[in-house]
Order: sequence, then structure tokens, then C-alpha cells
Amino acid sequence: MHPYDFISLPVRTKKPREQGLTSVLDKGLGVMQLQDFMADAAPYVDIVKFGWGTSRLFTAERLRAKLQILHDNQINVCPGGTLFEVAVAQNCATEFFKEIKQLGFSCVEISDGTVAMSHEAKLGLIRQARKHQLCVLSEIGKKSPREDSELGVDERIAQARAEFDAGAWKVIIEGRETGTVGVFDAEGDVQSQEVDQIVRAIGLQNLIFEAPQKKQQTWFFKHYGNHVNVGNIPPSEVIPVETLRSGLRADTLKEHH
Amino acid sequence: MHPYDFISLPVRTKKPREQGLTSVLDKGLGVMQLQDFMADAAPYVDIVKFGWGTSRLFTAERLRAKLQILHDNQINVCPGGTLFEVAVAQNCATEFFKEIKQLGFSCVEISDGTVAMSHEAKLGLIRQARKHQLCVLSEIGKKSPREDSELGVDERIAQARAEFDAGAWKVIIEGRETGTVGVFDAEGDVQSQEVDQIVRAIGLQNLIFEAPQKKQQTWFFKHYGNHVNVGNIPPSEVIPVETLRSGLRADTLKEHH
Amino acid sequence: MHPYDFISLPVRTKKPREQGLTSVLDKGLGVMQLQDFMADAAPYVDIVKFGWGTSRLFTAERLRAKLQILHDNQINVCPGGTLFEVAVAQNCATEFFKEIKQLGFSCVEISDGTVAMSHEAKLGLIRQARKHQLCVLSEIGKKSPREDSELGVDERIAQARAEFDAGAWKVIIEGRETGTVGVFDAEGDVQSQEVDQIVRAIGLQNLIFEAPQKKQQTWFFKHYGNHVNVGNIPPSEVIPVETLRSGLRADTLKEHH
Repeated sequence: MHPYDFISLPVRTKKPREQGLTSVLDKGLGVMQLQDFMADAAPYVDIVKFGWGTSRLFTAERLRAKLQILHDNQINVCPGGTLFEVAVAQNCATEFFKEIKQLGFSCVEISDGTVAMSHEAKLGLIRQARKHQLCVLSEIGKKSPREDSELGVDERIAQARAEFDAGAWKVIIEGRETGTVGVFDAEGDVQSQEVDQIVRAIGLQNLIFEAPQKKQQTWFFKHYGNHVNVGNIPPSEVIPVETLRSGLRADTLKEHH
Repeated sequence: MHPYDFISLPVRTKKPREQGLTSVLDKGLGVMQLQDFMADAAPYVDIVKFGWGTSRLFTAERLRAKLQILHDNQINVCPGGTLFEVAVAQNCATEFFKEIKQLGFSCVEISDGTVAMSHEAKLGLIRQARKHQLCVLSEIGKKSPREDSELGVDERIAQARAEFDAGAWKVIIEGRETGTVGVFDAEGDVQSQEVDQIVRAIGLQNLIFEAPQKKQQTWFFKHYGNHVNVGNIPPSEVIPVETLRSGLRADTLKEHH
Repeated sequence: MHPYDFISLPVRTKKPREQGLTSVLDKGLGVMQLQDFMADAAPYVDIVKFGWGTSRLFTAERLRAKLQILHDNQINVCPGGTLFEVAVAQNCATEFFKEIKQLGFSCVEISDGTVAMSHEAKLGLIRQARKHQLCVLSEIGKKSPREDSELGVDERIAQARAEFDAGAWKVIIEGRETGTVGVFDAEGDVQSQEVDQIVRAIGLQNLIFEAPQKKQQTWFFKHYGNHVNVGNIPPSEVIPVETLRSGLRADTLKEHH
């Protein structure tokens, strides 16, 4: 079914995956675009996040159409963590969980990147989301580089552990759309010691690293192999990321062939 | 009709708008792409500019199809100012106005960013465009950063005033596709004193600021509120820009919730 | 058929072209996207490259559908040079040539950007591809900036000459997706002396310069005129590049009007 079957590729997990996940950041794809994209990329996409509050701006009808396409392709979908935080700030987290479940989302991102909440409150919201039969992605990190830099690696690890105990499926390490906060410096370079510490403590398959830049993706695949979970991948970069995973691009070719 | 109606958003003007305009830079969207885009983004788009001379390269048939879609969605459309300037350089401005009116454009951008003309001549062309029943967007600024830097703020203000008197609907403050000339420095940072002076003299609702970069859009929304008019927004950034206007993205969340 | 026919444009070669070629880098367009794109851009596209190993990840059915659309629009199509190199590394170059011919590719890119091979071996592979009735684009340069910088201009010229003798149609000067290796420095600026030497020795129409950045395209059109061949153009930049060729954008307007 795929061409060039005489070219051997590294072993790759199959959907539904627990590791080797690719999570996509959708900033507002249209229904036709999404359909066209899925026809090729579905086997390589595990999660789609409708970035921050973008899903608030679509009609319910168009949103349901997109959710249906993604559901038909065995892809988990969540609204962005920022929309959840707006709901928290407006004291309507419960309505939010009910609404997204009813719209057809399978997943929710629980974050505290902008709206301050105690960690106890965050854990409570993770538990509440689980009660609504939502799969939980919890996110560690702040949107502001200054606030984020105050978060030590030990604290990140302790938070991640507590969030798993509360029911999170995976923990996302914040990188934003740009890849210049969290475990990246302002130039987008990986702070590798910190990443190694987190991976040793939490386990590679439990983490999703937001890694929108190619040099970041390359670093993760070279450093941890092709089973690492990456997030905030733009739709147009899903096929390129999969070639990096598979040694089909110059940057990772020598690792595999 | 929109989901999450329990989440309150800041007040937003409705189409047809006089302020809070979003003007899009189209570098060559296909007809299907445009249709798919409009199905979600139409309420958030006020003007589409077919960038510089791109519309010269389409067939009349495909161009008319795009114009019809935009017209059906109550969106003003103009060709880029550079195409107007080429027509001026080739002494065929009159044919140009007739042609775009006949093709179905509602609007024209009158600029002198590259082709030198006296300001008196530019004002005469604005008046001529009005006589052809075209809505006029006039643009202040030069494409070349060196030439543009010779234009003082007092001169920009005097030109803008005269262009309104000649019949312009809005005055565009040049930023190019990159956002690195006009009221921005080479890094794209806003020269805020200059912007404030222009706004005080001309009035916020009369100006469209070309602001292709996210940090520029964020600056304008934080500084002037969500009714500011922004231009040169790439199609894929229309939904993200609308989330910035509405406090649905981390960068402007605290202003609204 | 085209609007604004009173605006005169510089003379432009017509398809099938020997010079003034635009070669596109496709990182994974969908079938609908490609159709929509072709409806406007076909007259301005001569070659499409399915970047590096991306075509390995499509189903044969979808790949054939894309190849058919491009064939119907008189466009040459090749898989990326990296996929060829993977085949060489796995000792299956012959199967590779047979497979792409059978899938419907008209063209192949023969490169040694990542996988080391003697120049004699590379020439042999060019001859072999010709025997499979494939049109050959051969590429000079290394993917790694460090390795690439060790390649002197005399060596590049000698290699190019030998590759023409072996049957190459055009020689590609490596620039990657970023435009920061080969004849470009790390900031993407053109090393003009080196380019001039290569052009004098090989002839402008025999070369395709990978030039993904706008400032690079502008440099080539200003320096050599609009008949220069450029490559690694993203699909969304094909119409903008054509405006640069035609003096329909500020950057090259004064050269033509």
C-alpha cells in the first residue's frame, strides 16, 4: 500500500499509541483542509489541540464537523489549555467540562500557564475532568518566560507526579507556539540537563514535549529515539516530523541507515 | 450558535465595521481555500487585499470567483498598492480604476511606496478613484526602510489629513509583509511615541496599522483596546488575531478576564 | 484572459521552459490543496519535488493521484534527493529507479548531500537513471554547513561538468529548506563572487539555485534577470516569486517599469 516497501524503516508504534505520539496544534483549519490533511496524515497524528481559545470562535456546527472527522480517524481532540483557564477565571469550569464532552471532545488540557490557581485546585480540576469521562492532558509551565524561569526542575517533577496520581494521561511540558519557554531558552535551544532529569523521574512515555521547531524535534529524536512524544506540531509539519522520526530526512538519516 | 456561550467576551463591533477592522493580506489563496476559510473566518474579516501585483497573474475567471465569494461575505476587496503604482508608472491609472471596478473590486489602495509622485498628484488620484465609485484606502509610507525613515511624523500626519480631505476612507500605516518598516524598527518593535502622535492627530478609527507580527498585534490591542484596526494579517492568522482581540489567548487574557 | 492586459510585463519564457524555471518544494500537500493550487499556479511551476523522504509516507494511491495532477499540468516531478540516498545506503538504487518510474515520476534527483559516495559512483548512478528513461536533476553540495564549506568552488564546477557529461538535465546548487548552506551564509546572504564563478563556468540556464528566502530570490532576479532558475520555493510562495520575476512587487519594480 505504501510505495518503496524495499526501503526499510525503523520500528514505529501503531495507533492507538502510548508512545511515539505526535500532537498537533490547530490554529483554525477549515473543514475541507482538515479532511484533505487527514487523508494522508491520519496514521501519524495522535492528538489534535484546537489552540488556546480558537474553538470559541467557530460555530458549533463547524466545530462538530471537525470533531467528527478527527474521531473517525482515531484521534484525541482537546481545546487549548487557555480556554480552560478562561473558564476557571470566570468560575465556570463545570459548565466547560460538560460542554466539551457534549460537543464531542474526548480530551481536555488542564493548565495553569496564565491564570493563577493553587496546585491543590489544579489537582481537583483534573479529578473533576476525569469524572466527566474526559481524558486529561495536564500541562506544566508558565506562558511568561519570566514566571516560567522561577519554576525549578524539582518542582516541575513534583507537580507532574501529583498530576498523574490525580488521573492525568500524559503531562505536557510547555513550549508555546514558538518553542522559546519551558525547557528551551530564548533561541529555542534545549536545556538538555533539565530534560534528562525530568525524563528520568517521570518516564519518557508519560511526557509530551511541545517542540514546534525542527531543531528541537531533531534533538529529541536523536537523544531519545523515535518513540518520544512531541507536541505543538503545526499541521503542515506533521509529514516532515514523521520523516525525522523515520530517518527519511538528512538530519536523522545516519541514525537509522 | 457559538459554543461555550457561558464564557463572556469583551464587546466587539459587528460588520460592517468602522472600527475593530481586520484587513487580510492574500498572497494567492485558491478558490477552494478561500471558500473553506470564509466558512469560519468571515465574521472576523473586513478587508482583503490581493497583495501587490498578485492579481495580475490570475485568470479573470478565477479572480472573479474569489471576488464573488468575498462580496457574498460582506468583505471589501482591493488589489495591492504596488499594482496601482505600476499602473501610474505606465501612465494607465484611469484604465486601472475602470478595470478593477469592472472586475468587481469595491476598493482601491492608493500608495506611493515605490513609485515617486508629488503629493498633489497622489491626492488627485484619490479624487479620481472616488469618481469611479471606489472606496479608497490610502497608504502612508515607503517600502524602503531608508526612504521611509526620512518621512517625519509631522509629515505623515499632514499627508494623512490631506488624503482624508481628498476622500480616503481609512489611512494605512505601512508595515509591509514583514512588519519591519514604518512605525516598526528592524526587529519589528513598535515606536510607540510616534504611533501615539499619529493616533492623537488622526483618530484611532481612521487608521489601519499593518501589523503582521503577533507581538505587534498584542501591543496594539493592549495599548488601544480591541477596536484598533490591523492590516496585513495572513489568512492563517485571522482566527489567532481574533482570539487576541477577545482575550482568548494568554497574551491578552488578563486584560479581559 | 488575464486582467489588466494594458499593464505590460517583461518578456517571460513559456512552458516547457529551459530557463526561467521555478521548482517547488512540496512537504506534503493534500490532493485537494494541490488541485486548488494548480488551478492558478500551473503556468508558473516547472518542477515539483516531493521533499526528502516524504513520498515514502503517502499511500501509493494518493501519491499517484498527485502525480497525475502534476503530469496533466506539464510539470516534472521527482522525489527528494535524500530518499534516493537512503536507497543507495540500503543498496537498492535499481529498485528505486524502477519504482519511481512505475509510480509515474518523470524525474529523479541524484545527490550526495548526506550519504557518502565516490564521485565516480554518483556519475554511474546518473547514467543508470538515464537508462531508466528518467530525467536527471543532479545536486551539488552537502546538507551539513561544515561539510559543505569544505567544498571549493573549483570542485563544485568540476563536479557539475562531469554530471552534465553523464546526462544530467540541470544541476541544483544546494540551499536546503532554510537557504543557509551552499552559496548562502548562515544569515542567508548570497556569496555573490562564488555564484558568479559558477554561472560563468556552467551557464545560467543549466543551473537551479535553491533560494527559499525572498531576499535570495530578489538578489537572483536583480543580478541575472528574470530567466534565472530558482528552487525550493514553498507552494504558497510561487505566486509571490512570479511577481518578483515580473516586476510586480516593490523589490523589483524599478528594474522593469
